Amino acid sequence: MDYDQVEIRDGRLVFDGCDVTVLARQYGTPLMLLSETVVRGKCAQIKRQFLERYADTRAAYAGKAFLTIGLCRILDEEGFGLDVVSGGELYTAIKAGFPAERIEFNGNNKTRAELEMAAGYGVGRIIVDQPDEIELIAEVYRTAGKRANILLRVNPAVTDTDTHAYIATGHRDSKFGIPLDEEVFWPVVEKALATEEVDLLGFHFHVGSQLFDPRSHLSALDTVLELVLAMRERYGVVIRELNVGGGIGVRYLKADRPPGFAEFLDPVMERIDAFAEQNSLRRPTVVIEPGRSVVAEAGMTLYTVGHVKRIPEGSVFVSVDGGMTDNIRPALYQAEYQAIIANKADLPTQEKVVLCGRCCESGDILIHELDIPEPSPGDIIAVFSTGAYCYAMASNYNKLLLPAVLLLKQGQAKVMVQRQSYDDLIRLEV
Amino acid sequence: MDYDQVEIRDGRLVFDGCDVTVLARQYGTPLMLLSETVVRGKCAQIKRQFLERYADTRAAYAGKAFLTIGLCRILDEEGFGLDVVSGGELYTAIKAGFPAERIEFNGNNKTRAELEMAAGYGVGRIIVDQPDEIELIAEVYRTAGKRANILLRVNPAVTDTDTHAYIATGHRDSKFGIPLDEEVFWPVVEKALATEEVDLLGFHFHVGSQLFDPRSHLSALDTVLELVLAMRERYGVVIRELNVGGGIGVRYLKADRPPGFAEFLDPVMERIDAFAEQNSLRRPTVVIEPGRSVVAEAGMTLYTVGHVKRIPEGSVFVSVDGGMTDNIRPALYQAEYQAIIANKADLPTQEKVVLCGRCCESGDILIHELDIPEPSPGDIIAVFSTGAYCYAMASNYNKLLLPAVLLLKQGQAKVMVQRQSYDDLIRLEV
Repeated sequence: MDYDQVEIRDGRLVFDGCDVTVLARQYGTPLMLLSETVVRGKCAQIKRQFLERYADTRAAYAGKAFLTIGLCRILDEEGFGLDVVSGGELYTAIKAGFPAERIEFNGNNKTRAELEMAAGYGVGRIIVDQPDEIELIAEVYRTAGKRANILLRVNPAVTDTDTHAYIATGHRDSKFGIPLDEEVFWPVVEKALATEEVDLLGFHFHVGSQLFDPRSHLSALDTVLELVLAMRERYGVVIRELNVGGGIGVRYLKADRPPGFAEFLDPVMERIDAFAEQNSLRRPTVVIEPGRSVVAEAGMTLYTVGHVKRIPEGSVFVSVDGGMTDNIRPALYQAEYQAIIANKADLPTQEKVVLCGRCCESGDILIHELDIPEPSPGDIIAVFSTGAYCYAMASNYNKLLLPAVLLLKQGQAKVMVQRQSYDDLIRLEV
Repeated sequence: MDYDQVEIRDGRLVFDGCDVTVLARQYGTPLMLLSETVVRGKCAQIKRQFLERYADTRAAYAGKAFLTIGLCRILDEEGFGLDVVSGGELYTAIKAGFPAERIEFNGNNKTRAELEMAAGYGVGRIIVDQPDEIELIAEVYRTAGKRANILLRVNPAVTDTDTHAYIATGHRDSKFGIPLDEEVFWPVVEKALATEEVDLLGFHFHVGSQLFDPRSHLSALDTVLELVLAMRERYGVVIRELNVGGGIGVRYLKADRPPGFAEFLDPVMERIDAFAEQNSLRRPTVVIEPGRSVVAEAGMTLYTVGHVKRIPEGSVFVSVDGGMTDNIRPALYQAEYQAIIANKADLPTQEKVVLCGRCCESGDILIHELDIPEPSPGDIIAVFSTGAYCYAMASNYNKLLLPAVLLLKQGQAKVMVQRQSYDDLIRLEV
């Protein structure tokens, strides 16, 4: 098969050594699988192709893609850092025993309570996202008697990012980042330099998601590296850290040819190295924030077919027992996925069907055109590359239950997150 | 103000008699409010304008819009029925003591386990949505030693529904309903008539959501009433019940002029009455499934402003402490909302801002163009008409916590659903 850790044995789909049809029967569906082998493989690639090839580099996994205590522990073992965007993500990491100093706190609206948590735990970096945020950070850290390492998230105003508008974050008129207009940006820098409670290490930018080449990163770098020079010229300050965000694309469809980490990051590092050399600067530490590229391909979602409806001179609708509640990406971003019938994995595809979720809503279509062998009720559908932004965005719409998540490793499966129960749905009611 | 139970007192926004700025301070934000007065007012309108004007009619509230035990009890007191689409919704209703015989079970993929629950509790109606579903229902009810009252959800192939494609459910190539093609539809009818465990009461259709006129309903009726005649001609069977679904629009924006219930439903009833008279048929019981029209305008969401970012020659971005996690409708359906600053409710609007959620995603914009007085951090933003499909679709994306829901009634507020805690986020982890 074209996906990592995916193979066919005796006509059945096997993922990370596990017969997924057996897992579906044993644990019920919808069921989310996460391959530890794939996660660790991606971490190994990032280490081999980036961290170990370039001195002074770090990788902070972007927790918003998918975050559990179990995953935090794996990432800790792999020596990764963690990028969190809320108190909830921070809490999860701390509960996992993840070292706070390797955590970076992002987000356009961190609350005072969250900054207090961050100060209390001793989070490694606060990424300042808004022009007026330093004051709040300073207040909180002053009270805590601590000093915050900060980066300024700048808005490099990249306009050519080739991705869905919702996840293209680096354009000029964006809720994220500090705009570079003279009258906005430099007062923020001066505020940072003048504020005792913060140590301005450098800059952060993030230009988008699911990118297949580093064009936008390079374009952003042109802007950001000029700021590095200006910092030296204006204030004699040498930037020590540059966080270039995430955004590296993954394989959703078989035809997708996402770049390798080296392929994507080498041009970025070349640009930064050349800049440093040219300007006789010590090259700053470079940090990346891979999220999707670590977990997306490690995930698989299993569903059971309930009904097959054939509309004469129309479509064949295959209804499954999950949908936009466990994967809202097709409805929200028109995201495309590949799937097969796990228990008919070696049969030739025979017809084009519409793979429908079970929510009472026409938009709940998981795959609009899927080629599969003849489907029947009871078949197990496996959707590939669902590790990122699926469980993380899951809801109880229609009061459907959140699926269980199994962690797979070379033929072994264990429950990472239990399936919700009906009682969980009403637990918060008074 | 233009919204029901909304007024301004001493410069502050008051909803159902409660100063919402005080509620925000007391209970924290994001906070969802539900006005019991508005909910009961809508129920009263439906009774006065429909149920009491036409004999043999019922209203089954569509639980997918928003469902809690507390709301079930209110609806029970109002004498409403309930339309559920999952075991979770059914479980919630049963826990509320809602009479099972007044529950109707919809959905394109009810599982065997859910049908077993429905049979066990004695649910009033099963709406058959798929051509092959009767067999499964019969199996389950046979085992339970019971008989199911069923309606066939037909697909009337309405093409002119004037709403978002995601929620226009009545077009021909849809995952919902039984297509009317001769070779598909009539075998299903015959199966229903020949199956001892089911009692075929009639037909169900649903043509879309947030409709401002009954055109689509009338167009669907043309088709469905022909089926009623054909049932008599072919099988001598008189249809006893017709469920015309929901879809009645509500006021989101001040400029919206949604129809009254009578205005929307009178033409529907006229058509059905005329048909019955013309064909010397006893008019079937008519059931409606209002969801949004009962709760949307009863809801309000409160947020606290964290940051105000002014981009020179660009937008003013106002970041609040919730977003697509508590209201995904703007991102998912490009839905529009109206909002004001609750603590500056009598100040003139002064600038146009972008109201941004706090999720790490450019698409998390609640309102793209909002006219408000000059905003400051700490201001309380109140978004109107958020009672439907907001909390119901809420997620823990970015590991943000689900907001609390308060039930308001004439100046009294009580907690209906507690705010999630950080520990709730990791409760299911193993």
